[in-house]
Amino acid sequence: MYCLAMFLTNQIQEERERERMEKENNNASVEVMSNNQVIYREQVRGSLKETNLEVRTSSERLKADAGLGTIFVKNLYLACDPYNLTIIKYLTHLGSPVTGYGVARVLESGHPNFKKGDLVWGITGWEEYSLITAPETCFKIEHTDVPLSYYTGLLGMPGMTAYAGFFEVCSPKKGETVFISAAAGAVGLLVGQFAKLFGCYVVGSAGSKEKVNLLKNKFGFDDAFNYKEEPDLDAALKRCFPEGIDIYFENVGGKMLDAVLLNMKLHGRITVCGMISQYNLKQPEGIHNLMNLILKRVRMEGFVVSDYCHLYPKFLETVLPQIKEGKIVYTEDMAEGLENGPAALVGVFSGHNVGKQVVMVSRECVSLKCAINGVLMAWRSTR
Amino acid sequence: MYCLAMFLTNQIQEERERERMEKENNNASVEVMSNNQVIYREQVRGSLKETNLEVRTSSERLKADAGLGTIFVKNLYLACDPYNLTIIKYLTHLGSPVTGYGVARVLESGHPNFKKGDLVWGITGWEEYSLITAPETCFKIEHTDVPLSYYTGLLGMPGMTAYAGFFEVCSPKKGETVFISAAAGAVGLLVGQFAKLFGCYVVGSAGSKEKVNLLKNKFGFDDAFNYKEEPDLDAALKRCFPEGIDIYFENVGGKMLDAVLLNMKLHGRITVCGMISQYNLKQPEGIHNLMNLILKRVRMEGFVVSDYCHLYPKFLETVLPQIKEGKIVYTEDMAEGLENGPAALVGVFSGHNVGKQVVMVSRECVSLKCAINGVLMAWRSTR
Repeated sequence: MYCLAMFLTNQIQEERERERMEKENNNASVEVMSNNQVIYREQVRGSLKETNLEVRTSSERLKADAGLGTIFVKNLYLACDPYNLTIIKYLTHLGSPVTGYGVARVLESGHPNFKKGDLVWGITGWEEYSLITAPETCFKIEHTDVPLSYYTGLLGMPGMTAYAGFFEVCSPKKGETVFISAAAGAVGLLVGQFAKLFGCYVVGSAGSKEKVNLLKNKFGFDDAFNYKEEPDLDAALKRCFPEGIDIYFENVGGKMLDAVLLNMKLHGRITVCGMISQYNLKQPEGIHNLMNLILKRVRMEGFVVSDYCHLYPKFLETVLPQIKEGKIVYTEDMAEGLENGPAALVGVFSGHNVGKQVVMVSRECVSLKCAINGVLMAWRSTR
Repeated sequence: MYCLAMFLTNQIQEERERERMEKENNNASVEVMSNNQVIYREQVRGSLKETNLEVRTSSERLKADAGLGTIFVKNLYLACDPYNLTIIKYLTHLGSPVTGYGVARVLESGHPNFKKGDLVWGITGWEEYSLITAPETCFKIEHTDVPLSYYTGLLGMPGMTAYAGFFEVCSPKKGETVFISAAAGAVGLLVGQFAKLFGCYVVGSAGSKEKVNLLKNKFGFDDAFNYKEEPDLDAALKRCFPEGIDIYFENVGGKMLDAVLLNMKLHGRITVCGMISQYNLKQPEGIHNLMNLILKRVRMEGFVVSDYCHLYPKFLETVLPQIKEGKIVYTEDMAEGLENGPAALVGVFSGHNVGKQVVMVSRECVSLKCAINGVLMAWRSTR
């Protein structure tokens, strides 16, 4: 549920954009520059196709403005995630560049929190250069001895979602049993690894044999199953959790949730991060087994990562050492160049990518240490 | 959800009863006494009828046994509540006396926690005299300056359920908006009053015009509606809560829950005490609006009062002064004599009773203060 944060950010952005346009009209002296962009060209009907998007070069006047508190950035890496489709469909005007989470370098700053040369991650445009009109929603990148692209995933919003959802909402205890649906997704993979490192027994569900194999053999899950091949989800869960489930990290909703409710342990917790199986239905499926909330005294709680942004420093403190010690497996599928962005994003919906799909707009490695760590991590992830 | 506690208690009782019978067979010297009882005579099909029960006099040998830790009591007051039907249908053998919550005086004790003359409330039989084989589930009555019958309701399990559910599970804050379904029920009425005394805005739903009037005019609810007369529950809730609901005390489930989910405020809480509209359905109705748990970051939590028994002294500390100061409105409908028990219990299901239905097996007033308080409270409740 990044979308809510994204929605609010978009509201601020739009407001500021209007103010900027007004100012710009009164200030024709700003230099015109060329800017490659991925534009939302044609209304999405059903699934996303490359033809819905278009890469084109625009000429723009872009300049940070201290009066409006904007920052002008060069984009480096862009995140490709299922939520991008929601943003495109519901929050992007036809003819405008696609927006999403990304990593960027500040070229000019009109905001007191940022200065020229800073690296940031947050909501930006799918383009070479962006004017970020709500920079207070961006995080400054302080740790550059890991690949910068990690701030689109593991060290960005999906990482924070997994961390806050698991540690703050699930209230885990060592030795507890944890079930994660959509476990091979950006968030699920990290929840599973956090839970394993914390000392839980972890099982995930995913939608293909390959993903199930990866969960078990590469990402250290204790067990995993392909929900598409299970005629009876209740039976699958009983097989994996003969004693029941302490924690369910909910990403899918629908029939899986109903089956999980039958298998919760006393005082179990269901943390609701998403219900992806329900988003495209006219009416969400009915959930019938909520009586189990009483019988098992279960707590079910929805959360949105933006409520936990204050924990970002604590999150980095926990996760950065784990990354450097190779305790977290994280793989990326890097599309090079903005022109390959549309194909990379479309590929996410058909499961083409192996690991986190990123679009590299411009490569940047800020230190030798970062370069070495990058190579090391890439090597570890292929083992 | 008293039934779970009741089920566990029944399991202990049955085990002890077997042991007792064995002992008794070896000890024919214990005095045989006459005991009026309400017996489960004929299987309940659909709703409870008087003919399912029978009042009869048995001859029994009853004696507390220190070896088994039992206590022998004289029953004074018995609670009539909807949960009695569940107990009768699922936990009572044909030919055995009905069981339920009641108030009793100890005649003989074989348990170190109790002595002859003590007053207790807990699970007992619908009969003049009972041998309580699991007295550790009973509470000793220390405060006798209120009518003893209150320990079947306000100061017993329904009161504790309302108190623990509201204060421990709902995490209320002053000024919050509270919605209670089945608000005219034993628990709902008390939740509403606790919430009002705490400083919340309280609305309840009930199933008749009379109940709605009572909620508003006698029990101090800010508003109430008859769910049977509302063609659109969502609209009814929007009318009562234009800003949304902070706390929903859930007693009914089904369509009401689905409508409430559409009206929850950010960081709202749904405390699931019961889902009475669903108990008699083959399959519970589907709940479609759980996505709102994420959108509004709502916590939904089931609870069972037996998990909160340790809070009983704190509960009394809070509620006893409120009762004595007349801050809580509590009315009883007293059926006099065990022979009127079946009719009183059947009446509960057709809403015949006004206030908490109690069966008086034997009147007992332990102090003049209690008698005066009783009269005072009865007078207040008629105003």
